[in-house]
Amino acid sequence: MKSDQRQLTEGILFTDEYQFTMAQMYFRMGLHEKPAQFDYFFRDYPDYGGHKAGYCINAGLEWLADWMRSARFRREEIECLRGQTGRGGQPLFSADFLAWLERNGHFDALTMRAVPEGRVVHPNVPLAVVTGPLAIAQILETSLLNHLNTQTLIATKAARIHESCRGQLIIEFGARRGHGTGVNAATRAALIGGAHFSSNVGISHALGFPPKGTHAHSMVQAFLAMGLTELDAFRAFAETYPDDCVLLVDTIDTLGSGIPNAIRVFEELRRKGHVPVGIRLDSGDLAHLAIEAARLLDAAGFPEATIVLSNELDELSIWQILTQIGQEAARNGMEAERIIGRLAYGVGTRLVTSAGAPSLNGVYKLVALRRDGRWVPAMKLSDSPAKIPNPGDKRVYRLYDRRGKATADLLTAKEESPADMPEIVLRHMTEARLQRTLRKADIVEAEPLLGTVVDQGRPVYAFPPIEAIRAVRRADLDRLDPGVKRLMNPHIYHVSLSEKMWQMKQKLTASMRANLPRSS
Amino acid sequence: MKSDQRQLTEGILFTDEYQFTMAQMYFRMGLHEKPAQFDYFFRDYPDYGGHKAGYCINAGLEWLADWMRSARFRREEIECLRGQTGRGGQPLFSADFLAWLERNGHFDALTMRAVPEGRVVHPNVPLAVVTGPLAIAQILETSLLNHLNTQTLIATKAARIHESCRGQLIIEFGARRGHGTGVNAATRAALIGGAHFSSNVGISHALGFPPKGTHAHSMVQAFLAMGLTELDAFRAFAETYPDDCVLLVDTIDTLGSGIPNAIRVFEELRRKGHVPVGIRLDSGDLAHLAIEAARLLDAAGFPEATIVLSNELDELSIWQILTQIGQEAARNGMEAERIIGRLAYGVGTRLVTSAGAPSLNGVYKLVALRRDGRWVPAMKLSDSPAKIPNPGDKRVYRLYDRRGKATADLLTAKEESPADMPEIVLRHMTEARLQRTLRKADIVEAEPLLGTVVDQGRPVYAFPPIEAIRAVRRADLDRLDPGVKRLMNPHIYHVSLSEKMWQMKQKLTASMRANLPRSS
Repeated sequence: MKSDQRQLTEGILFTDEYQFTMAQMYFRMGLHEKPAQFDYFFRDYPDYGGHKAGYCINAGLEWLADWMRSARFRREEIECLRGQTGRGGQPLFSADFLAWLERNGHFDALTMRAVPEGRVVHPNVPLAVVTGPLAIAQILETSLLNHLNTQTLIATKAARIHESCRGQLIIEFGARRGHGTGVNAATRAALIGGAHFSSNVGISHALGFPPKGTHAHSMVQAFLAMGLTELDAFRAFAETYPDDCVLLVDTIDTLGSGIPNAIRVFEELRRKGHVPVGIRLDSGDLAHLAIEAARLLDAAGFPEATIVLSNELDELSIWQILTQIGQEAARNGMEAERIIGRLAYGVGTRLVTSAGAPSLNGVYKLVALRRDGRWVPAMKLSDSPAKIPNPGDKRVYRLYDRRGKATADLLTAKEESPADMPEIVLRHMTEARLQRTLRKADIVEAEPLLGTVVDQGRPVYAFPPIEAIRAVRRADLDRLDPGVKRLMNPHIYHVSLSEKMWQMKQKLTASMRANLPRSS
Repeated sequence: MKSDQRQLTEGILFTDEYQFTMAQMYFRMGLHEKPAQFDYFFRDYPDYGGHKAGYCINAGLEWLADWMRSARFRREEIECLRGQTGRGGQPLFSADFLAWLERNGHFDALTMRAVPEGRVVHPNVPLAVVTGPLAIAQILETSLLNHLNTQTLIATKAARIHESCRGQLIIEFGARRGHGTGVNAATRAALIGGAHFSSNVGISHALGFPPKGTHAHSMVQAFLAMGLTELDAFRAFAETYPDDCVLLVDTIDTLGSGIPNAIRVFEELRRKGHVPVGIRLDSGDLAHLAIEAARLLDAAGFPEATIVLSNELDELSIWQILTQIGQEAARNGMEAERIIGRLAYGVGTRLVTSAGAPSLNGVYKLVALRRDGRWVPAMKLSDSPAKIPNPGDKRVYRLYDRRGKATADLLTAKEESPADMPEIVLRHMTEARLQRTLRKADIVEAEPLLGTVVDQGRPVYAFPPIEAIRAVRRADLDRLDPGVKRLMNPHIYHVSLSEKMWQMKQKLTASMRANLPRSS
């Protein structure tokens, strides 16, 4: 793309056409400035095929807020809409609507409550609640979904990979296979969700992280084409980076050439007073090669040298590798835990594309409209009860049990609070017969999840740095039942409605069904 | 992201750290300006799980060329690298290297040959060949891969969806679920590969396409919350867009409410002299609902009204829907082909994320280095023969048979040409026993696929508009055997080496193996 087009394609026109056709219709009807409320939530955890997440990690909010502040109709955007024509060749948008849009086409009038980034989140819980003029809140839909869906999806995958790596170092390597510039959002989300560093230089700098990387196969190939050897290549690299030397050992033959040459260079480094960092394995049977590499490095007196694994890794392949090391190490006279404790992981493609589930099914639904001075809940029926959104202005509480573990998320009406309930009835989202009652004494905390981020366009929330967001993630994961964190077949975390919310939803559904034309 | 950070994260630092650590090492060794050649190719077709592509559609080149022209080291980028430190706290990059990078850190010295966008392409064929100073050609790697992998992946998915839709209208709807701003690249690729239009406003404008869209469920919900009805909402929309009226009929009850209300509004439009466009179905059993909708629309005298289908569509779900219509229409007294001929498709998430295969395994490999005035082929061994790249400076020819169909792509040495061969021997990429010989008389054309795009930084190629790229795609698909185009279990298209290329690859592999340390 030409760089002068970028602003046009990533500003307020980074949205779907129907937002503007609807906005103009609302304008025509005098409804465009009616206060409306929309909920962002996702319907289900990512399902990677054969394994499905038991939780997600919330992410994307700060970039959405940045976008909301900068995106607005300028003359260029107005001219784009002015040039659009309908089937008959007539202008699609009228001059009075465009004049209104030129004055009001920005997000300075919106209020947004949201769940902070890094929090563990679950389906059907409003993660962002937007209130403001109907036409404007509607125009926000596409970009809000794009920002929050992308980063929550990738932060979740990163958290799963982090879970599988048992605390070892993870570097995100995905810039070459992620989707266009969207991979920068993926890198940020990966850092929130569990990657410690990234190889992506620009976005690492922007976020305050040192980018990480060593060398590619091409470096060894170049030396070979020059009539030199792998050993020459390793030596040259070690001379340039004597204290930061990680060598990629599989360009020719991992065990036959790469590791022996790396060890020779490491010995040379040691004689000069340097500590070599380690090696990287990028192909073959990684568990087997890691065991063999550990044995060779130990024998040469480098028991601390890191072994970096890469090559299409994800949470399951890492789990498989660690399982295999557990089984094979002892048979080879090695201690599995010592090998696992020196591993690091370069995780790219499958992390930044959330392989298996490359999209999050987050939606943005109208839940209330202000009419005659009060909020009227908005509903949508569906043949599938799970797809009927929870109407109205809501509050969300996370309930913690005596162990300090999160036991459920509770959606209540605005005026309710768990503190005022004699006991807490948890109603299933759709099934009348499914409910459980919690004794107040068993609940040590009812934590409100939503906080105000933007108050009528005014930023009222200090976005924390990534490091603080990661601390939020770690704390939340510590308060999550281990069963919910399982990579496969996790326990289902409860997201429930209060009795009052449940009754309201039932009443609204019934009254909507009663008004169906075919029933009359 | 803050907008002032965008340029930093999407310019020349949109790459992997190891490109710079390698570049500095080359600089240290005096190798940084050695002429080098890199091939971009993908290793295998996307495998969506249970179905796998038989061809890809090449895309992304123009945006890559735009990026190459604009990306360069400015003071800001140099300062980013200057601030990086190694483990010991010492600066990672030295002042002399940074000074060289400030002067030479751009792509103005590179030459690129490439396959045009829109062409049908296959694994292991070089789709872009970059020649220039080793350090600079290496720095290009990550962004080149990102650009070409993304758009080729999505253009391919779009072509498959186009194949399944039997020529009917396809609108790309994916902005809300694509990966960040990368979805703009996905939209462009979708338009190249088979989508006719997109709902994404900004990028459609930038590419010269009118964006498409009508209304969402929220419009009907808003009217209901106002105490009005679905019919009121439809009427208001039709009044605003009397000649562009597509109504979404599943907010309440598709057959019981949505379609009857739409028909009432269509009748009102007709009385005023307008032609309603159609309806959109977004949930439920789409084949069944399409048949019922067609029946109701026909009965009301709207046999031309379009029925737009949407909801997580992809090539297989569309194929299933059309199969079901074929089976059920007659049973319901309807003609299947007439229903299928009035369908249009809104395809979003699964298109722009290439669901099932969200990444293309494109790689960028060093294939030759200039030494003593000649190009020396560069090699990389691998335990898996399929992963040993084809070395050296190559040419690519597509061979067409007497039917005018493409029968194979042939990789030759630079100095070879099929025109000079008495007969054409096609050697399998890795298996010595697999070869076939084509008589010259059976080959009506040997078309060179690579053309020069940039000659030492000078643009020498006129990038065609999207419409022309689509014509290229259509022409190429017409010349592809129908078996190769099948959505499932396609015939395998042959990509072969010339006898000379095969011998050279064997010789290099053998000599590299002979030089392995363990063999000595």
